[in-house]
Amino acid sequence: MKPALAKGTRDFLPLQAKKRKYIFELIEKVFLTYGYQPLETPAMENLSTLTGKYGEEGDKLLFKILNSGDYLKDTTDEVLQEKDSAKLIPQIAEKGLRYDLTVPFARVVAMNQHLIHFPFKRYQIQNVWRADKPQRGRYREFYQCDADVVGSTSLMYEAELMQIYDQVFSQLGIAVEIQINHRALLEGLAVEAGCGEQFTAMTIALDKLDKIGDEGVKQELLKTGMQEEQATWILQKIKDKRLHEFQFNEKSLLGYTAIQKVMQFNKNYGFQNPLKFEPCLARGLSYYTGCIFEVVPTAIQMGSLGGGGRYDNLTGVFGLKNISGVGISFGADRIYDVMEEENLFPDSLSEPVKGLFMALDEESLFYCFDTAHFVRNAGIPVDVYPEVAKLQKQFGYAEKMKIPYAIIVGDEERKSQSYNLKELSTGEQTKINKTQLLDLLR
Amino acid sequence: MKPALAKGTRDFLPLQAKKRKYIFELIEKVFLTYGYQPLETPAMENLSTLTGKYGEEGDKLLFKILNSGDYLKDTTDEVLQEKDSAKLIPQIAEKGLRYDLTVPFARVVAMNQHLIHFPFKRYQIQNVWRADKPQRGRYREFYQCDADVVGSTSLMYEAELMQIYDQVFSQLGIAVEIQINHRALLEGLAVEAGCGEQFTAMTIALDKLDKIGDEGVKQELLKTGMQEEQATWILQKIKDKRLHEFQFNEKSLLGYTAIQKVMQFNKNYGFQNPLKFEPCLARGLSYYTGCIFEVVPTAIQMGSLGGGGRYDNLTGVFGLKNISGVGISFGADRIYDVMEEENLFPDSLSEPVKGLFMALDEESLFYCFDTAHFVRNAGIPVDVYPEVAKLQKQFGYAEKMKIPYAIIVGDEERKSQSYNLKELSTGEQTKINKTQLLDLLR
Repeated sequence: MKPALAKGTRDFLPLQAKKRKYIFELIEKVFLTYGYQPLETPAMENLSTLTGKYGEEGDKLLFKILNSGDYLKDTTDEVLQEKDSAKLIPQIAEKGLRYDLTVPFARVVAMNQHLIHFPFKRYQIQNVWRADKPQRGRYREFYQCDADVVGSTSLMYEAELMQIYDQVFSQLGIAVEIQINHRALLEGLAVEAGCGEQFTAMTIALDKLDKIGDEGVKQELLKTGMQEEQATWILQKIKDKRLHEFQFNEKSLLGYTAIQKVMQFNKNYGFQNPLKFEPCLARGLSYYTGCIFEVVPTAIQMGSLGGGGRYDNLTGVFGLKNISGVGISFGADRIYDVMEEENLFPDSLSEPVKGLFMALDEESLFYCFDTAHFVRNAGIPVDVYPEVAKLQKQFGYAEKMKIPYAIIVGDEERKSQSYNLKELSTGEQTKINKTQLLDLLR
Repeated sequence: MKPALAKGTRDFLPLQAKKRKYIFELIEKVFLTYGYQPLETPAMENLSTLTGKYGEEGDKLLFKILNSGDYLKDTTDEVLQEKDSAKLIPQIAEKGLRYDLTVPFARVVAMNQHLIHFPFKRYQIQNVWRADKPQRGRYREFYQCDADVVGSTSLMYEAELMQIYDQVFSQLGIAVEIQINHRALLEGLAVEAGCGEQFTAMTIALDKLDKIGDEGVKQELLKTGMQEEQATWILQKIKDKRLHEFQFNEKSLLGYTAIQKVMQFNKNYGFQNPLKFEPCLARGLSYYTGCIFEVVPTAIQMGSLGGGGRYDNLTGVFGLKNISGVGISFGADRIYDVMEEENLFPDSLSEPVKGLFMALDEESLFYCFDTAHFVRNAGIPVDVYPEVAKLQKQFGYAEKMKIPYAIIVGDEERKSQSYNLKELSTGEQTKINKTQLLDLLR
């Protein structure tokens, strides 16, 4: 049989896997210094946990897992005869694959509310699955990378999450702008313009400013039923981008004050990537109720690399009311693409090991293997070509594997307890002893 | 709704997740120093890749994923009317969840044979899913942790994998015995006793020696149709455990020579956990064809913590013939249980952060937040209680979270640029400056 990947899924071969790990481990380290703790939830959730949380469209995109055993046993003849796929699902599938990390997180908090101490800070870096039509850059299985804190309304957390964004992206070497806005500020804007009812439609239109420009947004706003002057006023306010201009009513003042406070917390922090008030930012039709964030790369044309915000009722659906939370997420696949395009991954990632031992005879192979252990014991990754083969073959392997040093051992080296070290990029060769070898590879 | 986990699955709350990460990261580090590179494959595989690889029983234990959309559209009325669950599967499900890491690995090697340079060393630490009946210690979703090298028959790899076992278990602090045997040696034993045909039945019986004892195994051997004296001879040889006693025929000599060579490679290594020839070791009905290994804890009564061996035709089913490989795996769940029972996890894992800043007034909260960034910037995890609350409440949180130090800041400390540090375990309090704080938390 000719093997193939399931549609919309990917293998990560070593180099790719290492680059991805580099990103995740860097993010993870920052999360940990800010006190966020790891959480892992199962890939499979009961469909009752998942269904109805992502809208009608989301329900369709859930991967359902067929019940095991004789799953048709308790199905009704009627539904089978009708061939009604949707109706049959509850009879043959009770589990589905995780669609995001937010709903499982909410489930965990609700289920463990008496074990958890609030504020509860967690991060989660796991796969999610969506039965989307696969296309360039869109996969059916992909990682999400979230940090959230629940159980406190303190705006200190908004401030600290902005620091996390700044830390991560400056450590990765990606220049970004961190944008902040507040849902109440947007609502206040709509109300002030006299179009409170068009609030949602307005946010959807504003979100497109980047893509369709001023005139495009204006047309969209007019389509929602707004008057010309209302649309013009909104657009002018939005484009102005001065936070103090948004103190015109109670709603907008709420947003203004919150953003001000976040800025105040970060007054002495010193962002390497600017934190900017961005009144266009709307984060679509999400469940956010307070501050909202987005991270946009500035040196490269690409969509957002992360986003988040505050929500008020995440766990309500699981019976735990009045838990406010705020969180951010990182778009790992896009970050990977930027890093690749900008050549930001450290070169060392492409070296599987620092050096390859090459033996010229059987006895030397044992000698190489012993020295390899000595070097490995110091935490330095090295390898040994596993047999006595022609040097050309051994060098060929080292080159293809991008191993920087060859350590050649024959009768002579073995007897003098030395090593013939060759740097593959320059061809330079030196005879060294064991201690020198360790120092050099380190 | 009352949320629940899907049957046989687990959440890993922070402390548990950190302990698991501790195990995986330690193993991973050892893999990397030995030149093993990470590989990741998708959770979903085509059922055509998975089916038929794990026996009839295994096929039943595969989790199948319902096709998305109108999955009943192309089903045949006949099969639906019959309610034949097994027959319907190919019509409504084309994907399944990964059952182990070996088959996906073989698929990757076969699919990427022209990109991969042999010997190819990879490790893989990922979840697998099995529709087993859940019971104590048996889950439907669990991690496997494998390292394999394919494309070389060199016994150096067997030797190096034994070192990896030794390194990992001594670093984890678990005392183990590493057992080695060879399939050919077992086959030679059966042949020599004149029961070559009962080879498989013999290995199954021998595998039970631990559980059912000499007499039990003897009875099992007799049941396979052996003569009394054949069974006695086999049992005596097995119990003797002297490797040089297994040179009686060509088959056994093959096994003897291989094990000898592995020992020779490791002559100067210095095992902290003994590597022992164990002729009873059979590794069930597995696909192994050469050396086989198992790791058994010695200080605690528990099954094996890992196992592996050499196989000759892993990728054959995917069209790539004659690729020999050897691999080991770690039983992460059992290792976790041993570590927990023997109290081997570092205490520091239960501290989410080193210190918690507590502010006595609003102005001090900003001051705390600034200092927290200073400390975090040095890589030390700390946290700030997010609001000005009663000290009792703040201390309560620090205690419940098992945070070792409280850093209290009020008007006085702020004005003198100092911190009131309290060690929670002793109650000891000291007034220190910023530099001292950093040193102390480090």
